[in-house]
Amino acid sequence: MTKLWWQNECLAVNEKVKTEAQDRQGVLTKPPGSLGRLEDVAIMLASLYCDNKPEIKNPLITIFAGDHGVVAQGVSAFPQAVTVEMIRNFVNGGAAISVLANVNNADLQVVNCGTAFEIDFADNYDALLDKPIAAGTADLSDQSAMTADQLEEALVIGQYVVEQAKKNGVDLFIAGEMGIGNTTPAAALGCAYINASSDTPIDVSDMTGRGTGIDDAAWGNKVRVIEKALARLDLNSLSSQEILQELGGFEIAAITGAYIRCAQLGIPALVDGFITTAAALAACKMNPEVRDWLLFSHQSEEQGHKLMLAELDAKPLVQLGLRLGEGSGAATVLPLLRQACALHNNMATFAEAAISSSE
Amino acid sequence: MTKLWWQNECLAVNEKVKTEAQDRQGVLTKPPGSLGRLEDVAIMLASLYCDNKPEIKNPLITIFAGDHGVVAQGVSAFPQAVTVEMIRNFVNGGAAISVLANVNNADLQVVNCGTAFEIDFADNYDALLDKPIAAGTADLSDQSAMTADQLEEALVIGQYVVEQAKKNGVDLFIAGEMGIGNTTPAAALGCAYINASSDTPIDVSDMTGRGTGIDDAAWGNKVRVIEKALARLDLNSLSSQEILQELGGFEIAAITGAYIRCAQLGIPALVDGFITTAAALAACKMNPEVRDWLLFSHQSEEQGHKLMLAELDAKPLVQLGLRLGEGSGAATVLPLLRQACALHNNMATFAEAAISSSE
Repeated sequence: MTKLWWQNECLAVNEKVKTEAQDRQGVLTKPPGSLGRLEDVAIMLASLYCDNKPEIKNPLITIFAGDHGVVAQGVSAFPQAVTVEMIRNFVNGGAAISVLANVNNADLQVVNCGTAFEIDFADNYDALLDKPIAAGTADLSDQSAMTADQLEEALVIGQYVVEQAKKNGVDLFIAGEMGIGNTTPAAALGCAYINASSDTPIDVSDMTGRGTGIDDAAWGNKVRVIEKALARLDLNSLSSQEILQELGGFEIAAITGAYIRCAQLGIPALVDGFITTAAALAACKMNPEVRDWLLFSHQSEEQGHKLMLAELDAKPLVQLGLRLGEGSGAATVLPLLRQACALHNNMATFAEAAISSSE
Repeated sequence: MTKLWWQNECLAVNEKVKTEAQDRQGVLTKPPGSLGRLEDVAIMLASLYCDNKPEIKNPLITIFAGDHGVVAQGVSAFPQAVTVEMIRNFVNGGAAISVLANVNNADLQVVNCGTAFEIDFADNYDALLDKPIAAGTADLSDQSAMTADQLEEALVIGQYVVEQAKKNGVDLFIAGEMGIGNTTPAAALGCAYINASSDTPIDVSDMTGRGTGIDDAAWGNKVRVIEKALARLDLNSLSSQEILQELGGFEIAAITGAYIRCAQLGIPALVDGFITTAAALAACKMNPEVRDWLLFSHQSEEQGHKLMLAELDAKPLVQLGLRLGEGSGAATVLPLLRQACALHNNMATFAEAAISSSE
């Protein structure tokens, strides 16, 4: 059987540089371990970059946008028109992620993977890559969200974006997402991937959150919609990519493809919140070697996030009560990664500073 | 009775600007509340600056250094010579806080409040303010750490530093500290202030951590040293400043004075870890109005920190496993504050971006 591109092997982490970086952290002028998670980050980036002086010079934030047929079931507080309206806001600089990209000297790119409403190209769309697959996915509560061809197309969008990024010298990849209703496919994917491999299935209600801010009644409906979607599937007979096809979204699948390609080409990816973590889960199920290349930025306020993070054995750096998406949490954490690198690279050693060591 | 300077009133928070800032957060292009703690920070800084476009342009990091007589009891993993050795490292740029100040465009100043070893002024000490009170405090386990005059002098050092900072247009104050053994006075102060006002006293062992990295035996000894110090005091008969005199340190008291003066002059102070939180606790006990001007950056790995934070009703922004001191945790969090301001100031509103609101 032919190997599919996303099954190809990922770059190996450099264990020698990792050890060197650990050793360096032990001789910098501070009690060993006293920089906590910042030490872990520096050591991880050193080993991924094969460089004991790791630096993030050229980060890219790519927002993948797509619409979802399941919004017909009333799962979101916002109308579907907002997906394209926010695309305009991203490129015009008014969105949270636009502000954060600017503050952090990161490039910002928006990819249209398939929206239900038309994009008005009268606006300035230099930063927009237009790759619509269809006018939104099908309603996952009663049919496959995507066809097999659509899934393939979405994965390839992510692959393409990361290959271009590699050519442009990008050294950290942040995926953001926009798609009204997309906490529903993300929660469905979270349940499916966890329950397909666990003897103690989690409840849909534990994975399902308030998204952009739905009330109790709408939340109860959202839980039932996801339960209905899962009820039509035999999880044990489906492959990881088939689960993504059944329950995912164009933007989620594109991010899945992007994470896989990052790991294959050696670009660390900083994962954002609930939606991108669902994509990370899909990517790691489809190709477990991807996991080594993922850093987790924050734990979202969306209640199911911690369950997916646990499945990925991931401990995000911060918990700031964020639930916006767009890549905003990852962008917010970017300065922590840069500071971790600066500390690792620029602090003096005990020997250099002629400081007495512990007794 | 004459009012002492630290009892004078603090600047009031501007409630009108606070309401305006809250209103603005509600109309920016994001689901209401979706930026979590970053929204709280922006609203707080707006109200403290009396400006609905808050910005941190001129942050100052001041490291207060001092030595502690209690190190004779074997409470630290490092020799006392390290206090002055680290002062040299701070000004030479090799310490963690030096690197972080540089990355974050913050000014860095070091204040000698009284070290046991001599400082070698052959080094470049432009950034050092030399205000030694004595060659370290007395051993708090069997006598008052400071005389009343020494406490006054230490508080005035902090007052002076902040008055100079105000003249220089500093808009955010970060206090750091250096002093081998200073988790011992900090833990003693934490126990004393909490137990003086509580019916359910906490145990010294719950407040006492590993500091720079002591083993089990040294930790047990450290607990007994603090218990001995507390046993010689009748907490209910002592004022808040007398507790600071009995159990504090020169650098801790100077930071206490600095926090109080920040609140009186209207400079927000970003509190670091265990030691500076002990100073914050002292400041708020001596003048409760100080609390409004304190932001809390991180929860330290030093186990007692969360108890002091709870006493201050403070929820720090992040928890990164840091236990270095020097102001390093606060400096690490500075970019989060700046990003919170940038989001607040530069995001588009729903009306400006012509985006549909929630249904």
